[in-house]
Amino acid sequence: MGDDAAIFRSVSSANVACGFHGGDPSVIAQTCRDAAAAGITVGAHVAYRDLAGFGRRFLDCSPTELADDVLYQIGALEAMAHAAGTAVRYVKPHGALYNTIVHHSVHARAVVDAVKAYDPELPLLLLPGAVAAEIASAEGMRVVTEAFADRAYTPEGTLVSRREPGAVLHDEKLVAERMVRLATEGTLTAVDGTEIRVEAASICVHSDTPGAVAMAAAVRAGLEGAGVRIGSFA
Amino acid sequence: MGDDAAIFRSVSSANVACGFHGGDPSVIAQTCRDAAAAGITVGAHVAYRDLAGFGRRFLDCSPTELADDVLYQIGALEAMAHAAGTAVRYVKPHGALYNTIVHHSVHARAVVDAVKAYDPELPLLLLPGAVAAEIASAEGMRVVTEAFADRAYTPEGTLVSRREPGAVLHDEKLVAERMVRLATEGTLTAVDGTEIRVEAASICVHSDTPGAVAMAAAVRAGLEGAGVRIGSFA
Amino acid sequence: MGDDAAIFRSVSSANVACGFHGGDPSVIAQTCRDAAAAGITVGAHVAYRDLAGFGRRFLDCSPTELADDVLYQIGALEAMAHAAGTAVRYVKPHGALYNTIVHHSVHARAVVDAVKAYDPELPLLLLPGAVAAEIASAEGMRVVTEAFADRAYTPEGTLVSRREPGAVLHDEKLVAERMVRLATEGTLTAVDGTEIRVEAASICVHSDTPGAVAMAAAVRAGLEGAGVRIGSFA
Amino acid sequence: MGDDAAIFRSVSSANVACGFHGGDPSVIAQTCRDAAAAGITVGAHVAYRDLAGFGRRFLDCSPTELADDVLYQIGALEAMAHAAGTAVRYVKPHGALYNTIVHHSVHARAVVDAVKAYDPELPLLLLPGAVAAEIASAEGMRVVTEAFADRAYTPEGTLVSRREPGAVLHDEKLVAERMVRLATEGTLTAVDGTEIRVEAASICVHSDTPGAVAMAAAVRAGLEGAGVRIGSFA
Repeated sequence: MGDDAAIFRSVSSANVACGFHGGDPSVIAQTCRDAAAAGITVGAHVAYRDLAGFGRRFLDCSPTELADDVLYQIGALEAMAHAAGTAVRYVKPHGALYNTIVHHSVHARAVVDAVKAYDPELPLLLLPGAVAAEIASAEGMRVVTEAFADRAYTPEGTLVSRREPGAVLHDEKLVAERMVRLATEGTLTAVDGTEIRVEAASICVHSDTPGAVAMAAAVRAGLEGAGVRIGSFA
Repeated sequence: MGDDAAIFRSVSSANVACGFHGGDPSVIAQTCRDAAAAGITVGAHVAYRDLAGFGRRFLDCSPTELADDVLYQIGALEAMAHAAGTAVRYVKPHGALYNTIVHHSVHARAVVDAVKAYDPELPLLLLPGAVAAEIASAEGMRVVTEAFADRAYTPEGTLVSRREPGAVLHDEKLVAERMVRLATEGTLTAVDGTEIRVEAASICVHSDTPGAVAMAAAVRAGLEGAGVRIGSFA
Repeated sequence: MGDDAAIFRSVSSANVACGFHGGDPSVIAQTCRDAAAAGITVGAHVAYRDLAGFGRRFLDCSPTELADDVLYQIGALEAMAHAAGTAVRYVKPHGALYNTIVHHSVHARAVVDAVKAYDPELPLLLLPGAVAAEIASAEGMRVVTEAFADRAYTPEGTLVSRREPGAVLHDEKLVAERMVRLATEGTLTAVDGTEIRVEAASICVHSDTPGAVAMAAAVRAGLEGAGVRIGSFA
Repeated sequence: MGDDAAIFRSVSSANVACGFHGGDPSVIAQTCRDAAAAGITVGAHVAYRDLAGFGRRFLDCSPTELADDVLYQIGALEAMAHAAGTAVRYVKPHGALYNTIVHHSVHARAVVDAVKAYDPELPLLLLPGAVAAEIASAEGMRVVTEAFADRAYTPEGTLVSRREPGAVLHDEKLVAERMVRLATEGTLTAVDGTEIRVEAASICVHSDTPGAVAMAAAVRAGLEGAGVRIGSFA
């Protein structure tokens, strides 16, 4: 949806939609080629089967259906990545699935099972504290936690809901400063002004919002200026 | 759609729909598990993106779109097959795509390119004389030709169109006899009574028609009775 | 999916899928022509947008999305019905949507709003006690309640979940007797043997289960034998 | 896709996608409300069932399938339009379907049959000379022909293919002048410089291309400056 080529200059990994919430095979193929050309790691951005809702709506599917849908998406992306000279190196659930497996242990288990069945070495990129992270860790799988550059946090360390005012941050400079503190000190200022600890080995910037390219560039510049080395976790 | 477990007792390979003309991930997963349990080889039954039409309608997509759609389908099936303990061992286009690449060189080239990009060792299962077979062979890829057990043939060696009377054969005994002659002598009796030569290393029986299980069993029994060894080509 | 023409000899109304959980335009057109030929009333069987799950999975869409999806489906069916010489005369939600609006007031309100926006005279066919029935009644709309011929009931008058043993009844004679008592006395025997009152002006038989045709015929014969007149409520 | 509210200030009719090539029910609902608020006539932009290809790819469906798909789309849009306080007042095929029924008499007949079955008073908006126009006229239906503001024409009066250089015009001033001459004299300058006659009672501007809003405004201003009255044909 956004300007992938431009944003690829600032990031080290790309979450690629696999066709269930967005992306069709030709879009996926182009994204994989762009990622390969830019030396960016490709991750499978798997989702509930809900093209009409862009994967943003909880779907009460059975764990078997969910695990099979996740496997299908990873495999489909793998073929496209392979043809582009790269490979799927991690899995990050998208939208409603990402948020649901923070607390929904049945769907969390299904996602973990699917990734493990595909390749138990494949890391999962998840929100810190997600029940899916616990399940994956207990299975001996690698979990990478992430923070969201452009989102406000509650004092409890969760994201402020998009339905609340101030949930999304637009000030590049502020966002870059926050991410430097996160990377160097492991802390963020919550929406009520308190300091919170956030465990995150990866920082997510969206590619499909206005100002995404500039914000990604600002975050990268800020991190590099602070001596933080940026590289793919996978 | 049909009784896979029953028909798997008579065949050596299964063309598995990949979700673009039929099959959803959970159906695919179950089919792969059944095939693995029965020791049946799995092939990717790739199709135009046309769920509403069961892949039976020509879709004038670009070669890039087609190649990407084929790659996506193979990869998706591969993941399901892998989780079931097996793998995709050949590719057979389905329905309108199968028939189109008999003569449509652009779509034929796109299919061959996609399979080659995925794995140049993967055989293609095609109609004898298909332009796709020529293209694949020229690329150094393996082509396996097939005959259709339950279909009448024209004197030219092509299938009688389903729109013609007598196109589909229902007599198990007759079909079994025809397949024995095909396997042992390489000939079939065409719809007008002439004898024709048909090159086929594989025999296709449909799994989703009434009487499919009995016909597959009859063909297998006939072939084995004639001393023909049945095994996967892949 | 089932043998519509046969079952149409026993029923007075047909819930026609509108393409969001099943049915494509040509299937819908044929069903509408069959219904018109048989003198059967057509109702819109509207569903969540979930073809892959046959509408049996809750989808957490927004009320606006749901209302728009319902409107779209009613209108699409209306055009097909009109071309077949009939019309949509009621709306019955399907599957997960039917069950959700028993208790989910936001989705219930969205369905009622959509039907009212389309035609406030159109009756809604619902489970007795559904919150959607209260909302529709409060809007001055007509609600018709229904019972399920082949389902066991709890002592509270709700359906025994399909996940429980004994949820689905297969004995035609027993089912016919139950429906006669329901129609003449307004009572049913619950799964624990207690007698319960069930308000129902319509009896639902499924068309896509084995034995559906025979069960529908048995229920009709039983009702007619007891002097109950069968006719469409719409 | 584009800025509908802005472009609605310059046009008198809007071709609204019906969900088969683009548009989901909520997008359609919003477009209908915008059109109703702006006093713009709504037309059904019906298409082949090809969301993945935005309706730009020929699909070799049967005439029955096509007619049913067209009916379904018109009815779905009608319900959305009705809820927005307006109605479908004409039908304009989209993309590959629009181009196919210029010459493909079977598909042309199917489209005409569907519109006639829905409402024989509904006009069809078509390319001058389309075989669909002949069929519709022979059925006593109203056909409105249209010209494309931003497209170059061949000396034969057909559109220069988008694959050719110069097929799409970007100069607002030139386009406005061309449309004034078309409206007042019935002529256009073809790509080779010859003057051709073009019969068109409607002028199409795209809403989803860069510069669409400005081009629509320029064409309207040009026409009004030349004393041409702009109004819906329906």
